[in-house]
Amino acid sequence: METSISATFLVSAGDQPGLVARLSGFFYELGLNIVDASNHTDVHAERGPRFFMRLVVDLAGLSKPEAARGLGGSAARKTLEEVFGELAKKLGATWSVGYSDVPPRVAILVTKDPTCLYDLILRQRMGELRCEIPIILSNHATLEPVAESFRIPFVALPVTAATKPEQEKQLLEHVKRHHVDLVVMARYMQVLSDDFLQQSPVVINIHHGFLPAFQGAKPYHQAHARGVKLIGATAHYATKDLDQGPIIEQDVARVSHELGPEELVRVGRDVERVVLARAVRAHLERRVIVEGRRTMVL
Amino acid sequence: METSISATFLVSAGDQPGLVARLSGFFYELGLNIVDASNHTDVHAERGPRFFMRLVVDLAGLSKPEAARGLGGSAARKTLEEVFGELAKKLGATWSVGYSDVPPRVAILVTKDPTCLYDLILRQRMGELRCEIPIILSNHATLEPVAESFRIPFVALPVTAATKPEQEKQLLEHVKRHHVDLVVMARYMQVLSDDFLQQSPVVINIHHGFLPAFQGAKPYHQAHARGVKLIGATAHYATKDLDQGPIIEQDVARVSHELGPEELVRVGRDVERVVLARAVRAHLERRVIVEGRRTMVL
Amino acid sequence: METSISATFLVSAGDQPGLVARLSGFFYELGLNIVDASNHTDVHAERGPRFFMRLVVDLAGLSKPEAARGLGGSAARKTLEEVFGELAKKLGATWSVGYSDVPPRVAILVTKDPTCLYDLILRQRMGELRCEIPIILSNHATLEPVAESFRIPFVALPVTAATKPEQEKQLLEHVKRHHVDLVVMARYMQVLSDDFLQQSPVVINIHHGFLPAFQGAKPYHQAHARGVKLIGATAHYATKDLDQGPIIEQDVARVSHELGPEELVRVGRDVERVVLARAVRAHLERRVIVEGRRTMVL
Amino acid sequence: METSISATFLVSAGDQPGLVARLSGFFYELGLNIVDASNHTDVHAERGPRFFMRLVVDLAGLSKPEAARGLGGSAARKTLEEVFGELAKKLGATWSVGYSDVPPRVAILVTKDPTCLYDLILRQRMGELRCEIPIILSNHATLEPVAESFRIPFVALPVTAATKPEQEKQLLEHVKRHHVDLVVMARYMQVLSDDFLQQSPVVINIHHGFLPAFQGAKPYHQAHARGVKLIGATAHYATKDLDQGPIIEQDVARVSHELGPEELVRVGRDVERVVLARAVRAHLERRVIVEGRRTMVL
Repeated sequence: METSISATFLVSAGDQPGLVARLSGFFYELGLNIVDASNHTDVHAERGPRFFMRLVVDLAGLSKPEAARGLGGSAARKTLEEVFGELAKKLGATWSVGYSDVPPRVAILVTKDPTCLYDLILRQRMGELRCEIPIILSNHATLEPVAESFRIPFVALPVTAATKPEQEKQLLEHVKRHHVDLVVMARYMQVLSDDFLQQSPVVINIHHGFLPAFQGAKPYHQAHARGVKLIGATAHYATKDLDQGPIIEQDVARVSHELGPEELVRVGRDVERVVLARAVRAHLERRVIVEGRRTMVL
Repeated sequence: METSISATFLVSAGDQPGLVARLSGFFYELGLNIVDASNHTDVHAERGPRFFMRLVVDLAGLSKPEAARGLGGSAARKTLEEVFGELAKKLGATWSVGYSDVPPRVAILVTKDPTCLYDLILRQRMGELRCEIPIILSNHATLEPVAESFRIPFVALPVTAATKPEQEKQLLEHVKRHHVDLVVMARYMQVLSDDFLQQSPVVINIHHGFLPAFQGAKPYHQAHARGVKLIGATAHYATKDLDQGPIIEQDVARVSHELGPEELVRVGRDVERVVLARAVRAHLERRVIVEGRRTMVL
Repeated sequence: METSISATFLVSAGDQPGLVARLSGFFYELGLNIVDASNHTDVHAERGPRFFMRLVVDLAGLSKPEAARGLGGSAARKTLEEVFGELAKKLGATWSVGYSDVPPRVAILVTKDPTCLYDLILRQRMGELRCEIPIILSNHATLEPVAESFRIPFVALPVTAATKPEQEKQLLEHVKRHHVDLVVMARYMQVLSDDFLQQSPVVINIHHGFLPAFQGAKPYHQAHARGVKLIGATAHYATKDLDQGPIIEQDVARVSHELGPEELVRVGRDVERVVLARAVRAHLERRVIVEGRRTMVL
Repeated sequence: METSISATFLVSAGDQPGLVARLSGFFYELGLNIVDASNHTDVHAERGPRFFMRLVVDLAGLSKPEAARGLGGSAARKTLEEVFGELAKKLGATWSVGYSDVPPRVAILVTKDPTCLYDLILRQRMGELRCEIPIILSNHATLEPVAESFRIPFVALPVTAATKPEQEKQLLEHVKRHHVDLVVMARYMQVLSDDFLQQSPVVINIHHGFLPAFQGAKPYHQAHARGVKLIGATAHYATKDLDQGPIIEQDVARVSHELGPEELVRVGRDVERVVLARAVRAHLERRVIVEGRRTMVL
């Protein structure tokens, strides 16, 4: 059996009657089957109740006359997007779409720690993360052999306080040249500037602490000093406010007084990579909608 | 602000195009706002892909002319159900509906352990469990003072192997006299007969083990002997096959070699009552659909 | 079989060779069997490596001539303490002892929320918490019927900003009159003054947040606004620095974007009471040693 | 600072007075500092209460005259073992010892799934697992490039039902030639015969199910059919009774009705590798004592 191609729509709008019916009806009338749908209304949203929906639509129906008729003659993806855009406009909705046969392109940023890098590559190779990894970027040459063993291009761009603007410019050039859709900071030990973030595709970062506790540097040493009984990790979208971006995923592990800061690092590493992988996966599957400082993971 | 009254529909049907659109469109056309909706298609269902949907509908719209018109003159709940039933029939769907102003009536079955009993009553009193508890039934008088302190009628019906059919008959009479919708076995230490289960409203049971491991008696002693590192609890619908009913909720707690069987019981008790409460809550909120041996918790 | 009476010693000292041998040897030479022992050396302690030990000793041996001989004639508990005190002095150790036949006396402080109160009483009644509960104190009369249903004295002492010093004075009098060893704040919605804390027996508090995140008021509203994916609770010893006392126990529960602040409160309540109970139990079993801002839970 | 060399003793004996004192006194009198000690008495052991102790001893003291004197002239490790053996004999104790400067040698058995293999190698390289990995053995050539990228010898020994005795014989030869102390089945998809297990060093296996539920093949498909809400993994010592060996470590992950069998496999894979790594680490740190069907993890 051939797997069919699907489109995943993410929609958000001010809440109003009939949203589920009108959005699902749109595809029904075109003869496009809805494979998966979920929605949520956040009644606590700042500017009044807000509606979020994820719709996965089987595109096989696009080849039937019904679809072309409904779309005004052409059943191209572009036409589908235009006509859907008109409905969205009427509803005051924000939306985006991705196609299962156009895998997102992911750049991985690393420094010296190979844990998350190996983890992401292995998951991609095993089909858990549906994406391409055209480039690995680093401020150190340490992990070049890892990249090489998987035959992924690797570029080391050392950085100092003085050269940071220039280094980030080069980072951006590589990101753009490889048509990257998502940048993942897999233990990249540098803060990306606001300037970079504004020009870059969306960036996911992993913080080795249970945010909002222990922001900033050496979170496990902070956690040890405070004597916490659980340590955690937080994957979030990078924003100009360090460690303040919308949280995508978090998890914790139990620790005891017996563990020193170095052992907390070890325990934390296991949490980090699982949390980062889950966040990247949710993003790649187009499950995440950002609204203010919060995410909906549909 | 007055909270509006809602109806919660649960629908399951063989998968087919347009289900989301047609079901949500039904209410949209009547001017009834969908407050919450979620659906799932189980592609692994035994008899082919199967669709499940939960729709929460604001009934405020029933008082508008639009609704009466759409329903053929009457906007009574009964008419709504009849008209919806016609749609369901066309779709080959199974369905049920519950109303937020008709709280389910729950009978609690206990023996001597007060943990789950207190827990369920307190949650009901704090508004976590939206139900009425018209009766507590037991095979022992031990917990009568607990029932009394909350002013809930309590009936003790002792049981022996010889008197079991007769005792169950009396249990059933109490259940029916109080118009009970759900029976919760809150550490009721008797097996209910197939005969009872066939005549009774639906029954939820808590098993103090991580099913399907450790079925039957003394699961914590079994767990200790086997040296497991986690113990669990499982809430499920009671069926004639002991401990084999569809699972609603499970959870575990970490244990170590240091704990003896009695201490496993203590740790397990905390898991049990949380798991039972979550299962009862999911059922009361009409989130659970049974399909064969599995549940969908929407 | 009669359960024997035991003494539990907690010892902490600067690390030095032979501590385990000398401490366990002390009891061995007296013919007192060590039922349970655990120790830990914190190499990261501020003032250099520090040693912690918990020793549970069967006091049955005190009735043998060996013990009286070793203790210089008398086998009274007081003599045992004196002689052990001399060893501790040589080792530069801090220590304390408790006896299994002298259950600690616990005062519970509440306001209006019955969850933790019921939980603690039920666990005590079932033998999980080995203590007496001679008094329940509150700033509201709301929970008096709960206390009454368990036949525990209840005193309501309303409080305003103006009357706080006087009210705390009365609280203290009740605490002292009932020979209370431990005060548990079971959702007592007042901050205890530094003055109270200095005169009171040790106080355990439950914070409905995953400290050190979300200190202060309305932590679940803070958590919702920040969009966290896990919420937690923290039991700690109360100190003059609000929410900064040494942490005894923490736990978390997974939440999603679907839950509003009120629902986070509900989920959090389950975590809180389990965390508080575990902390109180660890304290009552004399497993907790405080060192600076950290606890060792042996 | 130079890290000192330590010896880790594991002792088990029928419970008797003075065990902690005599065992720790033995090293104290030799001037050997006890760095870490923990013990447990299992009062539920089949043949009466049983005592277990782990003692980590700093060997720096062996170079002092005190030690040589106490050991009868020689301060060699062999003498230490002989003299300790005499004490153990008096106590009726079983014991073993390992030295921090003699890292255990681990053979990894794999088939085609690289997840656990990468995980174990990376942890060893990062210092989390203190061992050498002299050889990777497989029944397929698939993972040879992985072994090669880390420069670890790899031997592929295909197997059929007919050739199994011969293949296992060759496996054993490689295990013995490389002086292997521990065999880790890292998703090796073959059952090792009783014959192999009797001749091999100790074997750790990972079962991709929450034992004792779902023994045997395709546990995630079993778990899906049964509709469980948690799936787990179990690391245990391999014994002739398949999936029945003493459990070292277990963990679970929450799943929902939305996940099909293939997705359960993915979620389970994350649990498996963490559980396997924790079990291997506990074994390498000499924390695990097997007693009948149970393990003590000290």
